[in-house]
Amino acid sequence: MSKPTILVTNDDGYDSKGIKALVEVMSELGNVIVVAPDKPQSGMGHAITLTEPIMLEQVDDYGDIPAYKCSGTPADCVKLASDKILKKMPDLCVSGINHGSNASINVLYSGTMSAAMEGAIVGMQAIGFSNSSYDENDDLTEQKKFAKKIAQEVLTNGLPNDTLLNVNFPLLKLGDIKGVKVCRQAKAMWKEDFIEREDPRGGKYFWLTGKFVSRDKGEDTDEWALANSYVSVVPVQFDLTAHNAISYLNTEFNL
Amino acid sequence: MSKPTILVTNDDGYDSKGIKALVEVMSELGNVIVVAPDKPQSGMGHAITLTEPIMLEQVDDYGDIPAYKCSGTPADCVKLASDKILKKMPDLCVSGINHGSNASINVLYSGTMSAAMEGAIVGMQAIGFSNSSYDENDDLTEQKKFAKKIAQEVLTNGLPNDTLLNVNFPLLKLGDIKGVKVCRQAKAMWKEDFIEREDPRGGKYFWLTGKFVSRDKGEDTDEWALANSYVSVVPVQFDLTAHNAISYLNTEFNL
Repeated sequence: MSKPTILVTNDDGYDSKGIKALVEVMSELGNVIVVAPDKPQSGMGHAITLTEPIMLEQVDDYGDIPAYKCSGTPADCVKLASDKILKKMPDLCVSGINHGSNASINVLYSGTMSAAMEGAIVGMQAIGFSNSSYDENDDLTEQKKFAKKIAQEVLTNGLPNDTLLNVNFPLLKLGDIKGVKVCRQAKAMWKEDFIEREDPRGGKYFWLTGKFVSRDKGEDTDEWALANSYVSVVPVQFDLTAHNAISYLNTEFNL
Repeated sequence: MSKPTILVTNDDGYDSKGIKALVEVMSELGNVIVVAPDKPQSGMGHAITLTEPIMLEQVDDYGDIPAYKCSGTPADCVKLASDKILKKMPDLCVSGINHGSNASINVLYSGTMSAAMEGAIVGMQAIGFSNSSYDENDDLTEQKKFAKKIAQEVLTNGLPNDTLLNVNFPLLKLGDIKGVKVCRQAKAMWKEDFIEREDPRGGKYFWLTGKFVSRDKGEDTDEWALANSYVSVVPVQFDLTAHNAISYLNTEFNL
C-alpha cells in the first residue's frame, strides 16, 4: 500500500513548536505537506480572507518535506492547499498542536479547529490537536505518542461523514496521561472582563480578558476528561442545526 | 409591561444600510442599543481580538438611540456590549441585516451569525438576519416586515436553551415572499477557485473566489426555502458535538 498523504497546518504559525512536533510524528505515518500561516492567528475562528490577496511562499524549515507559509487565516491555508498545492485529496488533514486548550466552547474561537473543519468540509479526514499548556518549553513527547495513535486510527478506520475530531491533551503537571476518552463538548463559556484604559486624548479602549466558566458537571465531557488527566476526543460536526428545536418553532411560533 | 431592551449589531459596520433597517424596525418593538463594528467585517467567522486593544466610541447616527462603533470583530462587539455597556441582559440580540446570504455552510464564516451566537452563548435570545441580495439599493421593506414578526415571536415565546436563529431572506427578484419556513442547514460547500497572480518580484499571491456547491436535494433545507421564495429560519446550536459518532469511536477505534 502506498503511504498516505498528510496535510499539516495550525494557527500558531508554520515555525511554532507545536506544528514541528506534529510534522515529526506524522512523517512516521505518511508523506507530509505543510501549509500553515506565516504568523500566529489565535482567536481567528473560522475567518477567511475576502478583501486582501493571500501570499504563499515555500520555506525550507522542514528539509525534504514540502512546506509553505501563507499570509491567510488557518481556514485559508487549507482552502489554498486543497485548490493549489495538493494534486489530490490528502488522506488526512491535521492541525496543531495548538498552544492552549480548544476544548469546550473554545472550539468556536479556534483557528486550529477551523483549519481542521475546513478540511472536513471539503471531504478530508481531519483532526485538530491542542495542548492545555501554553508553556512553549513543554517537550510534547507524550502528546506526540497519543497524536500518532489517534491519527493512525483515523487512517485505518475512517471517520463518519462530515465529522472531524477535536483532540485536547491534559496538563501534564496533573500527572501522567491516563488514556483517551471520547467525549462531548462541555457546556461552558468565557465570562468577559474587559480591562478599560484611556488614550491620551480621552478616548476609551479595552483589552479582552475573561474567566472560563463551566456550568456542566457531566463526567462525559472534554473538560472532565482533561481535568482527570485523560486526552479528550470530541467528534465535531459542522451542521449547526438544532434539529430538536424545529418542531418547537413549527408549533409554538406563528410565522 | 416595560419595553424590551434590544441589542442591535452586525458585521457590515454601524452605518450600513442593513443595520439601519434593523434599528428602525426593532425600535418599534423596544428600546434599542447599537454596538457594531466601525468597518465592514465580512468573513470574520467567530474571530475575537486577543492581541490588540479594542476601541469603542459613541456615535450620533441614530438620534436618541444610544449607539457605539467598535474596532473589534462582531463577536467582540457583543462581548463588550454585554460587559461594559448594557446594565442588564437585553431581552433580545439581533444582528444584521447582512448584505449577502448566510444560509447553509455560510453560517460558519459569517460575522453576522457569530455576533448572534456570542449573544446566545452569554444567555441572550438571539437572531441573525441576512439578505440574499448584495444590492445596496434594495429597499428592505419586505425584509423589515418579516424581521419584525420573527423578533416579536422570539420576544413572546422565547427560544429553547442554547439555541439562536439564522434567518435569511430570499432574492425578491424571484417574486413576492411566500412566507416563512423553519428549516435545517443545507449540506453545501464552497468549491474554491483561487485566482493566481504574480507580484513584481515574482512572488505568488492569490485571491479567494469560489462557487457555491450544494449536494443536498432536501426540501427541508434553508437553500430550498430561499430558492422557492420563502424566508428561511434555521435554529442553530453551538454544541458542535457529533453525538451520533461517539459510539462509533468507542467501538471501532482502539484508543
